Amino acid sequence: MAHKIGRQTVIIDSPVGIAAAAAVGSKKEGEGPLRKSFDIINDDSRFGKDTWEKAESKMQELACWKALRKAGLEMGDIDFLFAGDLLNQCIASAFGARGSGVPYLGLYGACSTFSEGCGIASVFADSFAKNCLAVASSHFCSAERQYRFPLEYGGQRPPSAQWTATAAGAAVISREAGAPFVKAVTFGTVEDLGINDQNNMGAAMAPAAAKTLSQFFRDTYSDPEDYDLIVTGDLGAVGTKLMRELMAAEGFSLGENYDDCGLMLYDREVQQVEAGASGCGCSAAVISGNIFPRMKSGELKNVIAISTGALMSPTSVQQGETIPGVAHLVCYSSDKGWIF
Amino acid sequence: MAHKIGRQTVIIDSPVGIAAAAAVGSKKEGEGPLRKSFDIINDDSRFGKDTWEKAESKMQELACWKALRKAGLEMGDIDFLFAGDLLNQCIASAFGARGSGVPYLGLYGACSTFSEGCGIASVFADSFAKNCLAVASSHFCSAERQYRFPLEYGGQRPPSAQWTATAAGAAVISREAGAPFVKAVTFGTVEDLGINDQNNMGAAMAPAAAKTLSQFFRDTYSDPEDYDLIVTGDLGAVGTKLMRELMAAEGFSLGENYDDCGLMLYDREVQQVEAGASGCGCSAAVISGNIFPRMKSGELKNVIAISTGALMSPTSVQQGETIPGVAHLVCYSSDKGWIF
Repeated sequence: MAHKIGRQTVIIDSPVGIAAAAAVGSKKEGEGPLRKSFDIINDDSRFGKDTWEKAESKMQELACWKALRKAGLEMGDIDFLFAGDLLNQCIASAFGARGSGVPYLGLYGACSTFSEGCGIASVFADSFAKNCLAVASSHFCSAERQYRFPLEYGGQRPPSAQWTATAAGAAVISREAGAPFVKAVTFGTVEDLGINDQNNMGAAMAPAAAKTLSQFFRDTYSDPEDYDLIVTGDLGAVGTKLMRELMAAEGFSLGENYDDCGLMLYDREVQQVEAGASGCGCSAAVISGNIFPRMKSGELKNVIAISTGALMSPTSVQQGETIPGVAHLVCYSSDKGWIF
Repeated sequence: MAHKIGRQTVIIDSPVGIAAAAAVGSKKEGEGPLRKSFDIINDDSRFGKDTWEKAESKMQELACWKALRKAGLEMGDIDFLFAGDLLNQCIASAFGARGSGVPYLGLYGACSTFSEGCGIASVFADSFAKNCLAVASSHFCSAERQYRFPLEYGGQRPPSAQWTATAAGAAVISREAGAPFVKAVTFGTVEDLGINDQNNMGAAMAPAAAKTLSQFFRDTYSDPEDYDLIVTGDLGAVGTKLMRELMAAEGFSLGENYDDCGLMLYDREVQQVEAGASGCGCSAAVISGNIFPRMKSGELKNVIAISTGALMSPTSVQQGETIPGVAHLVCYSSDKGWIF
């Protein structure tokens, strides 16, 4: 049974693993370096629907469907569905889950949602659930007009801005599944160092990521070098630089084994995404479509994945608030018996 | 350790109880029949802040502070904070949690959020957490302008409309706490019977409430008469009538022991709230401030609380979508050893 160690880390004791996972993207994602990591690429960013919001729901459905298919399961085999997205009132998730008949736990952690979902799902699977499904999504077109400007306005983007991924990722988290196994979860605190530029989300989220990761190392008495890969959600070029600095200040040096989903998804030289990718769908798709398969193939053994969220709204920014961040961490290993 | 029975009910096996809970409201809530159930009433609905959104964060902070104080705990004693609200990107919760230093799990279940939070908190407390805090809030002024019209517009409200409560409720859920004890949790599915009138939320949410409650009875082999009180979140006058009909169709007759937080909070004859109260803060405050104390005093022994949420946004309504609902159920007993 799960137990808590240190200040905020939960050790998952039962054999809880990723039965399968799937990633869905659109044209731009299919043109990037991770094109082969996607299970489904649809060049039509409306996914056959008449609005972008409905397209985003469709992406969640497709990601879930594909993950279930790869796991040899059906929706009826799932005990609990954990889902979230960036849209007001999380409608992509709610409408995606409608008709599934599966108990639905809606989450809001901004771009940290996927790891929040995987974390809670792992706790449930450790204790009593056979199969859980965690899914998260984002859509460039639905997010851009909600958070910033209507696309038609053609707003200029500063170099620190990140490109919201049109992507969804879903993972089936099960008792008695094979590798990768969930070894630990560190749910993060809300951190705010006073960033108020909504075109610089990486800087807003980096303090939360550094707080969660350094606490995890302290709780588990482990070090960055104990892991084949430490990957943050979507800090992008600005945020990852800060992340290295903040971690160094905490006494942990991040080396070559540190990467960021926001830097992996697109080719920044060619694809005009400024500081990189962002959005709930970014870490969901990269972890589901790229990291888990590299663990299954044996390329990676011990991995820390930290999804990072900026907990702001256009209203809070207009009201002069700074931008708090939160980061949730899940530690995976391809070795069932591995202990930090 | 918790286990799952039937199709979707989780039995909480460890002694998990409500260490303390608190309710915060404003002027209108203080003028209603439950005025004495509130720990804090501030006639200033801005709670000293310069925006309603910030006021809502303040209400969450006050509810948490008061609940902790009643439990004899400090924020540093809390392992996990589960929070949610109705605002875009759940900013009331995020800003309320900023600076708490407690691992933060953001939830979005619309008005079902409080019971979703209590449910997940109970699972965590059953397994490894010592103290969890669940909080939810809503604010008439922040919700009304976000979902419907600016208050200055003076929009007319049809008789089926419900009044968003300016309220927050928080509960400390702990291992080894005294009564009331959490006995079971049934997380609900997303249900949609095609209601598309955003001024008739009760009708949109009733099918989800009936689905969750009837499934709970089937999973636990219990009946409505086994409970001193069955209380829904905020179905209001229209929704509770439908709820009785839908439950009857499922073979369960709801009698005098059925009530609704949305009907309890205000005096509908005097306070001009049309079909009753609604909002995340409604069931959060009524359960925290009224139901739990009545269980502690011995007036109520076995209680089912079902918070109900309408999973829509103004965007989804404008795009012609119907309104799905979700309902999460928590079963409480003042008797530690009671088994359904």
